[in-house]
Amino acid sequence: MLWGGRFSEKIDDKALEFSSSLSYDIALFDEDIKISIAHAKMLSETGIISAAEFDIISKGLLTIKQERDSGKWTPDPAKSEDIHSAIEEKLKEIIGPLAGKLHSGRSRNDQVATGFRMWVKKSCLQLISEICNLQNTMLAIAEENTETVIPGYTHLQRAQPVSLAFHFLAYAEMLKRDVDRIKFTFSQADKMPLGSGAIAGSTLPLNREVTKKELDFASVTENAMDSISDRDFALDFLNSCVIGMMHLSRLSEELIIWSSAEWGLAKIGDKFTTGSSLMPQKKNPDIAELIRGKSGRVYGNYISLATTMKGLPLSYNRDMQEDKEPVFDSFNTYSNSLVLMSGMLATVKFDNSAYLEEMDGDFSLSTDLADWLVLKGIPFRDAHHIVGKVVKLAEEKNTNFKGLDLNDLKSINAVFDKTALDCFKLSGCLQRKVTYGSPNINFIKKRIEDFKKELNNYQMHD
Amino acid sequence: MLWGGRFSEKIDDKALEFSSSLSYDIALFDEDIKISIAHAKMLSETGIISAAEFDIISKGLLTIKQERDSGKWTPDPAKSEDIHSAIEEKLKEIIGPLAGKLHSGRSRNDQVATGFRMWVKKSCLQLISEICNLQNTMLAIAEENTETVIPGYTHLQRAQPVSLAFHFLAYAEMLKRDVDRIKFTFSQADKMPLGSGAIAGSTLPLNREVTKKELDFASVTENAMDSISDRDFALDFLNSCVIGMMHLSRLSEELIIWSSAEWGLAKIGDKFTTGSSLMPQKKNPDIAELIRGKSGRVYGNYISLATTMKGLPLSYNRDMQEDKEPVFDSFNTYSNSLVLMSGMLATVKFDNSAYLEEMDGDFSLSTDLADWLVLKGIPFRDAHHIVGKVVKLAEEKNTNFKGLDLNDLKSINAVFDKTALDCFKLSGCLQRKVTYGSPNINFIKKRIEDFKKELNNYQMHD
Amino acid sequence: MLWGGRFSEKIDDKALEFSSSLSYDIALFDEDIKISIAHAKMLSETGIISAAEFDIISKGLLTIKQERDSGKWTPDPAKSEDIHSAIEEKLKEIIGPLAGKLHSGRSRNDQVATGFRMWVKKSCLQLISEICNLQNTMLAIAEENTETVIPGYTHLQRAQPVSLAFHFLAYAEMLKRDVDRIKFTFSQADKMPLGSGAIAGSTLPLNREVTKKELDFASVTENAMDSISDRDFALDFLNSCVIGMMHLSRLSEELIIWSSAEWGLAKIGDKFTTGSSLMPQKKNPDIAELIRGKSGRVYGNYISLATTMKGLPLSYNRDMQEDKEPVFDSFNTYSNSLVLMSGMLATVKFDNSAYLEEMDGDFSLSTDLADWLVLKGIPFRDAHHIVGKVVKLAEEKNTNFKGLDLNDLKSINAVFDKTALDCFKLSGCLQRKVTYGSPNINFIKKRIEDFKKELNNYQMHD
Amino acid sequence: MLWGGRFSEKIDDKALEFSSSLSYDIALFDEDIKISIAHAKMLSETGIISAAEFDIISKGLLTIKQERDSGKWTPDPAKSEDIHSAIEEKLKEIIGPLAGKLHSGRSRNDQVATGFRMWVKKSCLQLISEICNLQNTMLAIAEENTETVIPGYTHLQRAQPVSLAFHFLAYAEMLKRDVDRIKFTFSQADKMPLGSGAIAGSTLPLNREVTKKELDFASVTENAMDSISDRDFALDFLNSCVIGMMHLSRLSEELIIWSSAEWGLAKIGDKFTTGSSLMPQKKNPDIAELIRGKSGRVYGNYISLATTMKGLPLSYNRDMQEDKEPVFDSFNTYSNSLVLMSGMLATVKFDNSAYLEEMDGDFSLSTDLADWLVLKGIPFRDAHHIVGKVVKLAEEKNTNFKGLDLNDLKSINAVFDKTALDCFKLSGCLQRKVTYGSPNINFIKKRIEDFKKELNNYQMHD
Repeated sequence: MLWGGRFSEKIDDKALEFSSSLSYDIALFDEDIKISIAHAKMLSETGIISAAEFDIISKGLLTIKQERDSGKWTPDPAKSEDIHSAIEEKLKEIIGPLAGKLHSGRSRNDQVATGFRMWVKKSCLQLISEICNLQNTMLAIAEENTETVIPGYTHLQRAQPVSLAFHFLAYAEMLKRDVDRIKFTFSQADKMPLGSGAIAGSTLPLNREVTKKELDFASVTENAMDSISDRDFALDFLNSCVIGMMHLSRLSEELIIWSSAEWGLAKIGDKFTTGSSLMPQKKNPDIAELIRGKSGRVYGNYISLATTMKGLPLSYNRDMQEDKEPVFDSFNTYSNSLVLMSGMLATVKFDNSAYLEEMDGDFSLSTDLADWLVLKGIPFRDAHHIVGKVVKLAEEKNTNFKGLDLNDLKSINAVFDKTALDCFKLSGCLQRKVTYGSPNINFIKKRIEDFKKELNNYQMHD
Repeated sequence: MLWGGRFSEKIDDKALEFSSSLSYDIALFDEDIKISIAHAKMLSETGIISAAEFDIISKGLLTIKQERDSGKWTPDPAKSEDIHSAIEEKLKEIIGPLAGKLHSGRSRNDQVATGFRMWVKKSCLQLISEICNLQNTMLAIAEENTETVIPGYTHLQRAQPVSLAFHFLAYAEMLKRDVDRIKFTFSQADKMPLGSGAIAGSTLPLNREVTKKELDFASVTENAMDSISDRDFALDFLNSCVIGMMHLSRLSEELIIWSSAEWGLAKIGDKFTTGSSLMPQKKNPDIAELIRGKSGRVYGNYISLATTMKGLPLSYNRDMQEDKEPVFDSFNTYSNSLVLMSGMLATVKFDNSAYLEEMDGDFSLSTDLADWLVLKGIPFRDAHHIVGKVVKLAEEKNTNFKGLDLNDLKSINAVFDKTALDCFKLSGCLQRKVTYGSPNINFIKKRIEDFKKELNNYQMHD
Repeated sequence: MLWGGRFSEKIDDKALEFSSSLSYDIALFDEDIKISIAHAKMLSETGIISAAEFDIISKGLLTIKQERDSGKWTPDPAKSEDIHSAIEEKLKEIIGPLAGKLHSGRSRNDQVATGFRMWVKKSCLQLISEICNLQNTMLAIAEENTETVIPGYTHLQRAQPVSLAFHFLAYAEMLKRDVDRIKFTFSQADKMPLGSGAIAGSTLPLNREVTKKELDFASVTENAMDSISDRDFALDFLNSCVIGMMHLSRLSEELIIWSSAEWGLAKIGDKFTTGSSLMPQKKNPDIAELIRGKSGRVYGNYISLATTMKGLPLSYNRDMQEDKEPVFDSFNTYSNSLVLMSGMLATVKFDNSAYLEEMDGDFSLSTDLADWLVLKGIPFRDAHHIVGKVVKLAEEKNTNFKGLDLNDLKSINAVFDKTALDCFKLSGCLQRKVTYGSPNINFIKKRIEDFKKELNNYQMHD
Repeated sequence: MLWGGRFSEKIDDKALEFSSSLSYDIALFDEDIKISIAHAKMLSETGIISAAEFDIISKGLLTIKQERDSGKWTPDPAKSEDIHSAIEEKLKEIIGPLAGKLHSGRSRNDQVATGFRMWVKKSCLQLISEICNLQNTMLAIAEENTETVIPGYTHLQRAQPVSLAFHFLAYAEMLKRDVDRIKFTFSQADKMPLGSGAIAGSTLPLNREVTKKELDFASVTENAMDSISDRDFALDFLNSCVIGMMHLSRLSEELIIWSSAEWGLAKIGDKFTTGSSLMPQKKNPDIAELIRGKSGRVYGNYISLATTMKGLPLSYNRDMQEDKEPVFDSFNTYSNSLVLMSGMLATVKFDNSAYLEEMDGDFSLSTDLADWLVLKGIPFRDAHHIVGKVVKLAEEKNTNFKGLDLNDLKSINAVFDKTALDCFKLSGCLQRKVTYGSPNINFIKKRIEDFKKELNNYQMHD
């Protein structure tokens, strides 16, 4: 215990276990070592400890890191309530009472907040890199499928033909926003609370600029009380995970639907499907299902922390110890999901052959016909109505557009001429789209190229 | 793997790890052993396997249990994806290919659902017992404090004097509802899905009544497809945990407020407080704070499962593997919180002495004065207004009710006589309340007695 | 304002608007009138007011009801902050100062809690009736489709053939649990808080048994402080709505998938689909989508109230005014969804014809073949493996089971004889299932009959 | 209806009501008018309609705006399902069939997404301005209270003395992050989807750069499919509301606690408190309670939309109509809370006089004493222990630090000299803090000045 001077009874065993965080805050080990070295360095630079003392302390800390990295030492939950105590206690074993100087002007309140922010920053960078990988996988699929026509759906009803490339670029764009959001989160975490003490800074002449520089933070926080009771960066991180997982849940849903016998558009590789303990014929898209399902835990994690923070008076309250598990769990879930989605997508075989005939003359070409009428000067509303009648006529004839000829069209409206029949052909449907952001093949190729450059650039400069 | 006959590639390592549930569904070990023995027994009774085969299988299963209980065997996540596979594979090691007969007519879908329900039933009983313990602690506090007057608050403003007993009985009543809710959850879990197979029962003549009896379920489920895709009992369990933790969060908040220097009403024992790594004088109500804060994770767990289940087509989808961790975590959190709250409450020292003088003549006796006027035939609204003026007069005189005499009262309304002054006395304030459910001392004593009998009865008969 | 005697400044306009609840608690109008009449009656029976006064008050209250029902009077948010004030103020207009006697021994705290519970009870009954209607619609579909074979899915992969009847009975069973849960909620709401006053009962001799009987509650609450700060019944109500909507979201998802061109199993009637403003060919399953999507708002409502209640000290806090909107909104959403789902289902045309050929000899009959082997004494695990090989062989031959003959089977395992080929026939697949809870036609018919009786019984006795 | 050409039955009345959004999307009226004018202008510039047609259409649209603004026209939910239909139908009444040309190349999918984004952008700006106002109120309080010493709390236990200014600056810093987050949200909403059509752009030569410029968007979206199924900006907006309301819930909690009789630190003005219908003496901090409680509804709204979006296949699904109510409701709640908090804070009277004596020599000065020892070269851990003993000694003497003299200190450790006694004085406690971010009066004054400049700057340039 780092406290206890005036307590007459030891803490209850179960209470200790309940309040211990070592089992999970051990994830902050590396950060805590770095913080302690930086803090000690600053203490020596400001004369609170001597250069020699700094030397002994920092060597001790590096020894601890070595021992842990090599498996020689493992923090013991029976002895220490958190990783910060564990390290300080271990340091005392190694260097003796001098270890007691390390905590000068420091509280676990600012220490934990600093370590947690460093961990969040590190994890943001990892997520961004994993998102880029997934985007690259998507771009590779897109590149091969700029002319692969598939139905585009609204309401899960065929709306208009699009390309597989266009569909995957939609996801790549989503993921681009996810990167933006994570960058914002990074910037929010990039402010250093160290030096805020328990609540109000210190009477010791700590130089926060020194530790800021050592720990590579963009700035120091402005108010000690806020510094130790702020977990906004963690909520922003969780929001990033929620929206990111929501995107992956949508893609998973599509992979699951596409893999059904009924859809038959996609076949996930064996490495990412599983079988059944009872039904020998099954190939199940389990990984996609798990990713979809795990959106739940990340949503829950967001609510968990938001609830914990609700209505807490300033400043630090022990409730806030509940900040880490939801963040760690969300990171693991999201990170694994990104990596697996990328690996899985790379194994998917797409087969649109069954669709090509079905879609030729399909009613999902209706909008093209309506636009044809608009260009003839017919108000869109009327065009929409006319095409509705064409669809109805085809249905009555038990056919699709292909089963209609010019006479059929003329029977509905005299404006039709034979160029209207071109609208019924699947071939050319992508090129007929001419607006920016459409599945027009030239646009798509250009977008893929630009996108790759962006990713490249990003990876080079960050 | 319990499947894989027709797969040409092994599952990806990371995918395997991502989809493995062994790390947490090991909690279902005991249940799985029981289920397997019951299933084997049924298979032998219906002639699907022989009596001798049952004998070997059940002995093998008991051996596994022994080996695990004694620490001789630990399921290995590298080899088995879940506890069910681990046990079956271990059984094969012990008894050979005969182990392969155990899974006849069974799918992991119904097996998991059955084990999970048994776990939920068991956990319900444990929670009920822990709630009863906490209620007993509350009743003990109440018993000693039927005449301990404290302020009763609405809006955290003093409203009317009540007793500490009355205050704690309010919590005991809440917890009674928690027991009712858990009993309802138990009844929902108490329906056996075993024998539902993967989705549609079996062509083998399984007798579900036999396993139902062996496994002590109240009934069998009615529809196989529903049976393996139903997690309602888990959501009901989580709802029980949410409301239960919400109650504990309220009590925690009060203990925290009461322990402040400003309130000074309660002092939590050293065994349930902690100190500060920086500030030597601190005694912090950490356990109460953690319980309050942990309501967040339980809320999150509810949303986690509800989200996972949202929009899933029938029947089983792998998403549903995400059902267990939120339930296990909520149980642990709630169960620990109940036990610690009970332990902590037993150490709390209450001290209302500072309040006794303050509350004598306090404005929180206003309602009594208004009621006095009502009994004189004055419409309550007018009485309310008159008392408002009395309060204002006292405030102008910079005093409370005690500083007023009969003339003061009469200056506001002629109806006052000297019996009105009795309303200003703290002594007798509890006894003046005469409605059922009020803090009247006689009522409270009777309620405590009845409550103890209820708890006693409950524990005897359940 | 029902208060204000000692306030020197009027409440800020925006604050008044912010704190006003009249716009939504007007839903409690009927309940509030009933409560006031019952309370007045009790006041007269206990002699706090005279019989004549009761007569005037109750007539006044009935006049208010008449005026509102006939549209002659509408409560004005500019004048009253809630429906309770509005009614009392209106009563004063009608009967004068005597209206001021109505609030004797009553607080808005217990008044609101009582009215809200009455509303919840009423709404529970309505939901149960709507669920029964939906179940009847499902039973009607089931009755016509006991032999309509469709694929049963796990992981959205075809698992085993089932019947449409079996599939809809799965939903009917879910809804049965929803009824159980709502009945539990009803029982939790069925305890009367009236007579608890603001926090601690009253010094007036209120007889709560009288009002309990008048207002048809099962019992009175036991602790005044708990009574006015308890919203558990509202959370239980919301939990009922969450799970109920989750069920409907699953059914909606299926209707949406089934309505896709790819699935083609269901066609929702025009009355429950909509078109597109742009694409003339579209028929969209909007109602199903909206029901699925609206699960979100109900989940949100649960979190809303649970969050509001988190960490509130006893007893009443104004935060709790936030209890009603989530409950009212969830009820409306759930109730409308039930009614619309029932109406929509009644218009759905199912067409399994395309499936019949596809499913004959389909790999989803694998389990039957494995069971056939088990009955020959082969351990299930081996049987599972053998069937896996049969599937692989068929795949290599680019066929399904139908393309295999006895020699093919024997090439894999000698135990096969020609009765094994029967397992490949779709016809008879339902009858081959013999376990309780399976889609066996006889069982299903029996279950439908029993279910109808249960619903009938329920409606007669409730 | 804007569709319906090929439907043989009218939509069910209840279904129409269920799916209608006019009651709330009327909030997008102004945006929809602007979008339509911009779209028409672009159509004329690209030659799809004539300049004369544009003139008639835009005049018609402005007439509609005029009629609605003046109350002459109100959209009728019985006739139109949403605001977009209502306006187009009204336009037809005014200008006839030409109105039908307006929807050329446009779908409600891109129209709604565009209008919603414009609304979000507008609301972001309003929130930022309201936050700045609240920050200014806080800065005004801070400015007057740089030397007003109050206890700083951790765990709601007195930790170290701070100033009221420091405490309010902590909130001002939080709110600064809220502004950053809203700016990020603004940038996410600032991409124009118009021209994306239903899903895949258009075959008409729409020029999206023209509409982008007209509607003042920073850029156009890159992928039509993503454009119409993206609601990330709405979730980011809700995340901003969640965190913002969480902050306000913390401040509310403090105002409530501070207003209690026990704390007595703050008195909220009559304009922002309310009374009791039963208890004449009450002044309740209702507005603070409501703000705290309303955090619940905003949390719920976040979950509502996140749940709705979970697992939706691309592209638009009707579920997504559920996007607006949570956003509108959260904005209203948050915006009102900001305005009321600012108004309320301006009325609060703070009174720390009771604390001044209590805090002089209080144990919350312990850290200063420990730091004193550190500066004497004693390792902090030992210093912490020594001060623990000093505290214990004072407690045994039934006093605080003031009751100890130098001999007492020396009895514990010889290092103490009389300068140590200065640590026990409340006066000077703020100035003793010397770290950046501490409550040191000079730092605080500087920070207030800088903060005001930032706010000023912000308001000038945005």
